[in-house]
Amino acid sequence: MIQKLNSVLHNEIPITKSLGIRVNSYENGVMTLVAPLSNNINHKCTAFGGSLYSICVLTGWSLIYAKLNEQNSSPHIVIQKSNIDYRLPVAEEDILATCRFESNKQVDKFLTVYQRKRVSRIKLTVEIRQSGALAVVFSGQYVIHSD
Amino acid sequence: MIQKLNSVLHNEIPITKSLGIRVNSYENGVMTLVAPLSNNINHKCTAFGGSLYSICVLTGWSLIYAKLNEQNSSPHIVIQKSNIDYRLPVAEEDILATCRFESNKQVDKFLTVYQRKRVSRIKLTVEIRQSGALAVVFSGQYVIHSD
Repeated sequence: MIQKLNSVLHNEIPITKSLGIRVNSYENGVMTLVAPLSNNINHKCTAFGGSLYSICVLTGWSLIYAKLNEQNSSPHIVIQKSNIDYRLPVAEEDILATCRFESNKQVDKFLTVYQRKRVSRIKLTVEIRQSGALAVVFSGQYVIHSD
Repeated sequence: MIQKLNSVLHNEIPITKSLGIRVNSYENGVMTLVAPLSNNINHKCTAFGGSLYSICVLTGWSLIYAKLNEQNSSPHIVIQKSNIDYRLPVAEEDILATCRFESNKQVDKFLTVYQRKRVSRIKLTVEIRQSGALAVVFSGQYVIHSD
């Protein structure tokens, strides 16, 4: 799944290669993407806010992609709206963003609505930490649809 | 100012060169940044949401930078939090994002508070249009500080 997702990200959204974004792990329902600070640095030697946003939005996207793939389903996955809160500067070389579904109930409802209506929405939270502390909190509403 | 801002963007945030982001114009208080769709395309031949966010956040940043430069002031300019609403797909080759201050009163207050406290906050709205219609609406809270 990790290899497949990296290939999807890099082929379908070529700028991810310049950003250096790739899947780090997908274990126990937690999707983790990583990008090097060096590709995404700003003049303060911390990560550029636009890069942090891009990593976050793709972490949520990848979690949905992986879950749908397990169901042999491949609808379009689109971000509709989101907000991001920059709480601490991000200065570690590996920028790691993580996302998990809120609960099994949330996933079940998301998939059930999709099966019935061919369109479904879900809200996901993505986090980036620095030395354990919450540095970036992203919340995005994604929609999946069949055509 | 345009040449100076492009140099600042490309030197201080190198990923802007891969994104192809540059200042298009700064006239009558309206800052406009542009980026080519081709650098920022996704599998649907529309712009990647992370790229649209990056263009928007830098358009607000550039407007503040230009205004402060006119005042011979150069504090740090940092994005604190923001939200973005993707209303229509962005598929035109030139992605244009525009931002202006809400009012003279807003700018005056922003600058006066900075002079007094050496820190000040401002909320700016950035828009991307497609054939005249509002496609992306970004709202960001920026902070400026002296050290």
